[in-house]
Amino acid sequence: MRKLINAPADVVADALRGMAAAHPSLRVDPENRTIVRADAPRTGKVALISGGGSGHEPLHGGFVGYGMLDAAAPGEVFTSPVPDQILAATTAVNGGAGAVMIVKNYTGDVLNFRMAAELAEDEDIEVETVLVNDDVAVEDSTFTAGRRGTGATLFVEKIAGALAESGADLAAVAGVAREVNERSRSFGVALSPCTVPAAGEPTFELGEDEIELGIGIHGEPGRERAKAMPAAEVVDAALTAIDADMPLSGAEVLVLVNGMGGTPLIEQYVAYAAVADWLGGHGATVVRPLVGPFVTSLEMAGCMISVCRLTPDLTRLWDAPVETPGLRWGR
Amino acid sequence: MRKLINAPADVVADALRGMAAAHPSLRVDPENRTIVRADAPRTGKVALISGGGSGHEPLHGGFVGYGMLDAAAPGEVFTSPVPDQILAATTAVNGGAGAVMIVKNYTGDVLNFRMAAELAEDEDIEVETVLVNDDVAVEDSTFTAGRRGTGATLFVEKIAGALAESGADLAAVAGVAREVNERSRSFGVALSPCTVPAAGEPTFELGEDEIELGIGIHGEPGRERAKAMPAAEVVDAALTAIDADMPLSGAEVLVLVNGMGGTPLIEQYVAYAAVADWLGGHGATVVRPLVGPFVTSLEMAGCMISVCRLTPDLTRLWDAPVETPGLRWGR
Repeated sequence: MRKLINAPADVVADALRGMAAAHPSLRVDPENRTIVRADAPRTGKVALISGGGSGHEPLHGGFVGYGMLDAAAPGEVFTSPVPDQILAATTAVNGGAGAVMIVKNYTGDVLNFRMAAELAEDEDIEVETVLVNDDVAVEDSTFTAGRRGTGATLFVEKIAGALAESGADLAAVAGVAREVNERSRSFGVALSPCTVPAAGEPTFELGEDEIELGIGIHGEPGRERAKAMPAAEVVDAALTAIDADMPLSGAEVLVLVNGMGGTPLIEQYVAYAAVADWLGGHGATVVRPLVGPFVTSLEMAGCMISVCRLTPDLTRLWDAPVETPGLRWGR
Repeated sequence: MRKLINAPADVVADALRGMAAAHPSLRVDPENRTIVRADAPRTGKVALISGGGSGHEPLHGGFVGYGMLDAAAPGEVFTSPVPDQILAATTAVNGGAGAVMIVKNYTGDVLNFRMAAELAEDEDIEVETVLVNDDVAVEDSTFTAGRRGTGATLFVEKIAGALAESGADLAAVAGVAREVNERSRSFGVALSPCTVPAAGEPTFELGEDEIELGIGIHGEPGRERAKAMPAAEVVDAALTAIDADMPLSGAEVLVLVNGMGGTPLIEQYVAYAAVADWLGGHGATVVRPLVGPFVTSLEMAGCMISVCRLTPDLTRLWDAPVETPGLRWGR
């Protein structure tokens, strides 16, 4: 296991200490394991909370800040945060206007966020839960009933965050979050597995000349094991799967080519060139591209492609200023 | 070779097409292999040009934009750009106030930039060349006479870019670039090798329980092969080496924990926590931290630590607005 860590049991705690030291704009509570905007709570603002297993950085903690999340609750690596932790994050940012919990569709996350929402309601915080389930690769998985939540989580958090920042109410913020999820699809490809520190062994085995099409962000199985292929064919497989589920012809789209953690930026740009070619050749117009490692899976090599069919309102919210460690522009 | 590419010979061309498609703020010339600010040339502004082998993205092309570089000349992977290409980048951004060429200290880069500078002078462009040689690990290497240029290149490009943006003259911009280099040191550690696409084989071999202390950004040998060790000990080795060369006690520092391309962000934060502890325990004050993969080495796993002893003027220039694909804040 080649990892830059101290001890497997300390990875999340150490990383949180690092985030706290690196980002004065965040308030990190190592005991409760919460990451909160330093200016929270903001009275009258709908609070956006997300969370999930660690190992996907900068998701979610790196998306806490102006114009995006108010708080994140990071669990152990690839393990859901617990309800009390999510509740602590929620109460820390409660501005009296209710809270939207953005939950990737994994069984543990869904259960624990549901319990946290009930606990928050007991404290008179109105909660709307928004499920993200954008991954078209598989209908159910080892971690999921229904589709998995993956790359589009970034879109949901950014766009709902912009609307919440503008002063919109709870129903509107939850509504736009659901709209973004409904208009988004993703498909991931792994060139290598990853190793959960506490396990010490790769999540799966992949031959030197094999790739996994439709991989999940925890290394859970995808749709198909295939022979290694050129980037343009990887992209074709991914976009064909997305297009079959949500036709892209005629759409104006936001596209993310997302590095999975172990694939360098030069390869992500190679993939993006193929994505731009494919979409142009299939009648879609990329109006907002994004390339980088935003929703990672430890050191897994590969990429995920996420597409959102924009509307003028969604484009405007995407463009709105954001200032977080992981995403920042225009302020 | 697990890479998301089409063909080894096409990697740089494909990645440049991807950058062009993803970043309308850049003007990418695939024929001359130059990346130029869309608003160049800016009359009366000192032009900042850098370049070097590809495989270190976002360096250098991703640092082209407001407040940083005017142009970059990317060579083949780990291979110097050629003089004509550097000249093309220089003439494309020449605003009549001279050009500063920021050159990492590798033999090929030094020679080719020297020739490009002579060609530019022939076209009446005054050129100042600034050599970056911040890596304390080795005095000479397979690629170098003298110390290698590594992570501090980011500091030099950002700070000199801010001064150039403010309207300073050629001597002042070159002067601050040299000052930043003189006040900066770096030390890298590899947990895995990387594979140049055209070679198809790893740049070196590393046992499953081995790391390379003092690695270069091309996988060239470092100072010492060692047994795998906890992140805190890796950081101690790196900062002890830097501190022995440039004492850090009492300094106010800018610190970069730089992912080498294959190490995920969660591990970079683990390393940064140890960096913050070490510096605090040795009398240094971190006034500006930065964590992320900025000067990469393809998919190499590991990190590099770069430290710059700031002055109030350098801090102000570091904080100045920057808007590039790879670094962006405050505008």
